[in-house]
Amino acid sequence: MKKTFKSNDENLNEKLLVEETLFSTANGYIGLRANFEEGYASGFDTIRGTYINGFYDVIDITYGESAYGFPTTAQKIVNVIDGQGIRLAFDEEEFSFFDGEIVGVDRKLDIYNGKAIRKVHWRSPSGIEVIIKFSRMTSFTKLELCIIHIEVESINFDGKIKITSFLDGNVTNYTNQNDPRVASSHASLLNVVSELQHKDTIQMTSTTKRSNIKVSATACHSRKMETSYHKNVFESFCYAPIEAGKSIEFTKYLVYTDSIRHENCSQEGLKIIKAASKHLAEYWFKNQINYLNDFWRFSMITVEDHPDIEEALNYSVYQLLASAGKEPHSNISAKGLSGEGYEGHYFWDTEVYMLPFFTLTNPLIARNLLRFRYETLNYSRERALQMGHQRGAKIPWRTISGTECSGYFPAGSAQYHINADVAYSNIQYFLISNDIQYMLDYGLEVLVETARIWLDMGHFTDNNRFMIQAVTGPDEYTAIVNNNYYTNSMAKYHLEWTVNLCHQLKKTHTKEYVKIQHKINITTSELHDMAIAANRMVLPYDEKLDIFLQDDSFKDKPTWNFERTPKDKYPLLLHYHPLTIYRHKVLKQADTMLSMILLDNVKESTYLNSYNYYEPLTTHDSSLSPCVHSIAASRIRNSKVAYDFFMKTLRLDLDNLHHNTKDGLHIANAGGAYMTVIYGFAGLRIKEGGLYFYPCLPDEMKSIIFGINYQGSLVKIQLGKSFKITVEKEMDIYIFDKHYTVVNHLEVQIYE
Amino acid sequence: MKKTFKSNDENLNEKLLVEETLFSTANGYIGLRANFEEGYASGFDTIRGTYINGFYDVIDITYGESAYGFPTTAQKIVNVIDGQGIRLAFDEEEFSFFDGEIVGVDRKLDIYNGKAIRKVHWRSPSGIEVIIKFSRMTSFTKLELCIIHIEVESINFDGKIKITSFLDGNVTNYTNQNDPRVASSHASLLNVVSELQHKDTIQMTSTTKRSNIKVSATACHSRKMETSYHKNVFESFCYAPIEAGKSIEFTKYLVYTDSIRHENCSQEGLKIIKAASKHLAEYWFKNQINYLNDFWRFSMITVEDHPDIEEALNYSVYQLLASAGKEPHSNISAKGLSGEGYEGHYFWDTEVYMLPFFTLTNPLIARNLLRFRYETLNYSRERALQMGHQRGAKIPWRTISGTECSGYFPAGSAQYHINADVAYSNIQYFLISNDIQYMLDYGLEVLVETARIWLDMGHFTDNNRFMIQAVTGPDEYTAIVNNNYYTNSMAKYHLEWTVNLCHQLKKTHTKEYVKIQHKINITTSELHDMAIAANRMVLPYDEKLDIFLQDDSFKDKPTWNFERTPKDKYPLLLHYHPLTIYRHKVLKQADTMLSMILLDNVKESTYLNSYNYYEPLTTHDSSLSPCVHSIAASRIRNSKVAYDFFMKTLRLDLDNLHHNTKDGLHIANAGGAYMTVIYGFAGLRIKEGGLYFYPCLPDEMKSIIFGINYQGSLVKIQLGKSFKITVEKEMDIYIFDKHYTVVNHLEVQIYE
Repeated sequence: MKKTFKSNDENLNEKLLVEETLFSTANGYIGLRANFEEGYASGFDTIRGTYINGFYDVIDITYGESAYGFPTTAQKIVNVIDGQGIRLAFDEEEFSFFDGEIVGVDRKLDIYNGKAIRKVHWRSPSGIEVIIKFSRMTSFTKLELCIIHIEVESINFDGKIKITSFLDGNVTNYTNQNDPRVASSHASLLNVVSELQHKDTIQMTSTTKRSNIKVSATACHSRKMETSYHKNVFESFCYAPIEAGKSIEFTKYLVYTDSIRHENCSQEGLKIIKAASKHLAEYWFKNQINYLNDFWRFSMITVEDHPDIEEALNYSVYQLLASAGKEPHSNISAKGLSGEGYEGHYFWDTEVYMLPFFTLTNPLIARNLLRFRYETLNYSRERALQMGHQRGAKIPWRTISGTECSGYFPAGSAQYHINADVAYSNIQYFLISNDIQYMLDYGLEVLVETARIWLDMGHFTDNNRFMIQAVTGPDEYTAIVNNNYYTNSMAKYHLEWTVNLCHQLKKTHTKEYVKIQHKINITTSELHDMAIAANRMVLPYDEKLDIFLQDDSFKDKPTWNFERTPKDKYPLLLHYHPLTIYRHKVLKQADTMLSMILLDNVKESTYLNSYNYYEPLTTHDSSLSPCVHSIAASRIRNSKVAYDFFMKTLRLDLDNLHHNTKDGLHIANAGGAYMTVIYGFAGLRIKEGGLYFYPCLPDEMKSIIFGINYQGSLVKIQLGKSFKITVEKEMDIYIFDKHYTVVNHLEVQIYE
Repeated sequence: MKKTFKSNDENLNEKLLVEETLFSTANGYIGLRANFEEGYASGFDTIRGTYINGFYDVIDITYGESAYGFPTTAQKIVNVIDGQGIRLAFDEEEFSFFDGEIVGVDRKLDIYNGKAIRKVHWRSPSGIEVIIKFSRMTSFTKLELCIIHIEVESINFDGKIKITSFLDGNVTNYTNQNDPRVASSHASLLNVVSELQHKDTIQMTSTTKRSNIKVSATACHSRKMETSYHKNVFESFCYAPIEAGKSIEFTKYLVYTDSIRHENCSQEGLKIIKAASKHLAEYWFKNQINYLNDFWRFSMITVEDHPDIEEALNYSVYQLLASAGKEPHSNISAKGLSGEGYEGHYFWDTEVYMLPFFTLTNPLIARNLLRFRYETLNYSRERALQMGHQRGAKIPWRTISGTECSGYFPAGSAQYHINADVAYSNIQYFLISNDIQYMLDYGLEVLVETARIWLDMGHFTDNNRFMIQAVTGPDEYTAIVNNNYYTNSMAKYHLEWTVNLCHQLKKTHTKEYVKIQHKINITTSELHDMAIAANRMVLPYDEKLDIFLQDDSFKDKPTWNFERTPKDKYPLLLHYHPLTIYRHKVLKQADTMLSMILLDNVKESTYLNSYNYYEPLTTHDSSLSPCVHSIAASRIRNSKVAYDFFMKTLRLDLDNLHHNTKDGLHIANAGGAYMTVIYGFAGLRIKEGGLYFYPCLPDEMKSIIFGINYQGSLVKIQLGKSFKITVEKEMDIYIFDKHYTVVNHLEVQIYE
């Protein structure tokens, strides 16, 4: 993924901020925003950031008027010690992007080699001409390791290059008073507690102010440096002689370790850097490529004749990989590790938008991500009690360490559907992986504990229907409603599967099941109640319109006056009071439609009518929305519309469509981009019977090729005029609900 | 109203805090909590406070997650310069309630003389015995004036009493971290900006930190004092020789002026104190009595054979007078001027719970209170725009200066019914006073502007019903619901009357009406729309149960598990998350029933069924609730229950039933106590045809006597076995809907 720009561009600062995000490098553990190593000119705004997944401080939440059960503290991702700083001076003349002349510049994120490259052809004010190439990598094979490699090619300079490298502990988080999607305070979260210098290695350790966790940044270099320490900053420098026509190289090894993962993070840092720096940069770059070759084998999407689309799609896929925690201490935050938006919190996005990619291509990562909810289940149990439930677990709406961090419950804690979302992703994972051991070790306990909440949330009416009151669905432009279709239908699926799995595992894995049964006291009567509740679940339906209704009162509301709403009043949430929005028929994002694409269990006319009813009411003010509508449009065979929404999804960050890409990538949208192709164009659904396909390729595309990891083996699909599938192991699939057994290869004509 | 206690009481501190409230003195402009002049022993908690109605500072409101239209600042009542301090020393032995022996103590608020008295018979550690009587008054005839008068009678002391008087600028507001009904921060709001000493007068002027308004406290004394000033404190002292068996007297004149009312408040303070101190305390005490004689003529409630009830009732009535602003800059805050609870904000309480008393007895004060919404109408207009309305005025849920101060909109700004409440009180005032001039000058504009919001809030459904979505009714245990019966029925009344009055005034006062019409652009089509909306208003009704439903979804909710809720979990709001409460059938306070008592327009069976349906679901966690249920019970002729609720209402503060009387009196409850008698036992309703009575005296009572100011003349009603009415002017009344014309006197037998 490439971008080019000129340094005299008048929106340069804005663009640079966006590129800090777009070219960020991460491996799921550590993320570096693509800040210039040497910094910007003074007056230029930057969000200089380095983040560790799951590494947080605690901050207070305050309220105008508080109430019982409002969380009083939240976690917040921490901008850790800055190791990006490197400056270059050519005989006293300091390299700067903002001085002299930029003859050429080339910036890219190489998603196949796993590195970000910035190549600058620079002519200094005095006429020195050099080409500087910065390559950065956060290693997938050694998660704690980052490498910044610099190559300087001299065109006309004979002399000494002074290379200065920094480790800076004076870091703060980014704040913005005016945007609810970004933190407004709590900038300073870290204190430097120790620093050490041992031979050529330098290390700084900081501790968070309230959560009292530690991070060490350890660095060494490929050249011998002289180092000084002053006011929480290490400064190391060396001189490298160079001649015109020649090149020199320089490598900075940078290792982050933290006290969540390592008992003694500073010692661990020293150990890792010692091992890492034994190898040249090239070694690590090669390892990275090997790792990614494996990754792309299952994950690559090929779009015939559309290299731009293909590149953007695979960019999304790569960012999913870069964002995903690789062990159960961490998950995928809303912005991955590319920025501080939403304070680094994990939402339902992981389960509904990001996991499908991993579930289909990388079960090991999927399993880890799923485990996060298990590892934090005790917090969810505590929260359930606090929310007045007798038992069960209530997944927090937003969190890092596991406690609820939502400071506005109508669009936070009220979104009970997250319980069903987590269950859904567990079930989908189980269906595709058949990983019974996972279900026995973790999954079933999560399923049962989260399902229990529904029995407490809902109740049976006089006519024996099961209703769920006072919740908020995915659409945050409607809050605290009754019988939200999404919530109820997902809860129904959740309850049904919980009961089924209990019965099934009781038979097939009696010993293990009984252990779980005792551990969390699963009773027969409770399973019976769950089955009845699922069976009698209210799913609001309008017979005349043949649509499912978003909730009990949705239909009665007046339609938002879209005609009278100028473009600059979107997103509505930034320009209208919640109450103004709540009392109208207007959606921030897919709600009923999302259930339909996830559960795929409504008849075609209802699907079509619902789509036609809801889409015009949807502002897509959430980045989670267009992808869902693309998938839904594909399912109702409206490939034109599906393609339009797909392009909006695909370009959301690349074109900064929401004007906040500077705060980080919309990782759920990246997952959504993947889903628009696999769930949309190829129409994949994972059901109990196996893989179902409802393909609908847009006219704009000739063919797409992608892979699926089905129970450990590669399934390759090519969708063009025909549907071609190649399998390593014999399997059953369904195309438009027609059953096929595939041995090696199958081709089915789907268009005349 | 009297209370006695002993200084060795183990709950003494708690009792003293409550008495600081109960014996507070106020006149609607200035309020002094009943703090001991000489202070408490160290370690004793006190809320030492002096408040000026409408005098506020601005504080920030912060949110966990903010959204558009959330108020970012609020007003807060200010604890102003403390002038209460007086110390007495008997030959170096300092008088303290906590040293030596309290031989006797007598504390009372004399509601007929308008002063608070504290009489302490004290024996000092060394054996000095004196009787000290503190009398305090905030003058109704000169609102800025407070008088503290001290009489010391010596039993056995010969010597010199040192009297030291203070004016203390080092004041802070009270805070509490754990109670949502009390402020949690913003303690220091005032800075002393100047002090002066001129002959025997001392004066200190402070300014609020953000609202930049000034308050001057000016004092002088009946004896010549020596004065010093140090660190924002004036200290004046004198010596008074005394002999055993003799008495001495001492008067402190204390004047408060502020820059909201006075261009130069310090000069004004000096002027007022000069005039005031020309007279002895006795003069002002007499004036007070004269004023109160007039007041009690219309306001006194006599309860035959129940002096306790009578006293408690008239105590409530007196506190209403003491709390009510006497000019349009101020209103009645939730706690009057007796404490800082709810930060001194004005709510709908004024209109619905407090105004009935003034409307029926004191039209001049009523008119002023009503005018407050007119004077702040521009703020309400701005707020309407901010809340997405095209035009009209949205009354703030809580305010001092007129802007919305609610920091939790589901139980704040969402309570749109306040618009109708304000309208209702205007209409009721108009009906009883026939004050057309008020309507032309102020009332109509308020009515029309607030009515406009309904047209925007509601909409017509397909079947041409008018619905109002996403509001919160008076019952805050249910939030953001559709077609709240209270809101809709009150809006209907509001719209109907707005249209009627416009048509009526257009005919009878064409010139004045046209002026208003032009000023706020009243259109014929708008009035037409209002009439239709009123006519087609949805009023949710359950045919089978023959009840009105609190809102569209109320009936579907499961009933709160009252059995499983221990007593110490009340009020629920302090022990359950709002969502837990919202999804259940449980009421904090009267909602549907309140509409029924205010509008009195449902058939008897519905009234009865609704009462029986809602009462068991109501926790009465709000002090606004029992009185409504008492009135409703009277109306359905269940006098036993009516009496029980009446007693709860009557004793709420006197017995500290809500455990928060220390934070101030529940003034709405005081208004409610009045209403339980007049609207409840006597069953008064003000309708277009005149006064309607539905009397239902509890068996516990022999007779009650009360007065009404009906269009300027006194109407005296005695309700016992018969209903007796005495009028100064001929008038029409209705008893159980039967019409009577009263000339001089009428007696109707209502019981066999």
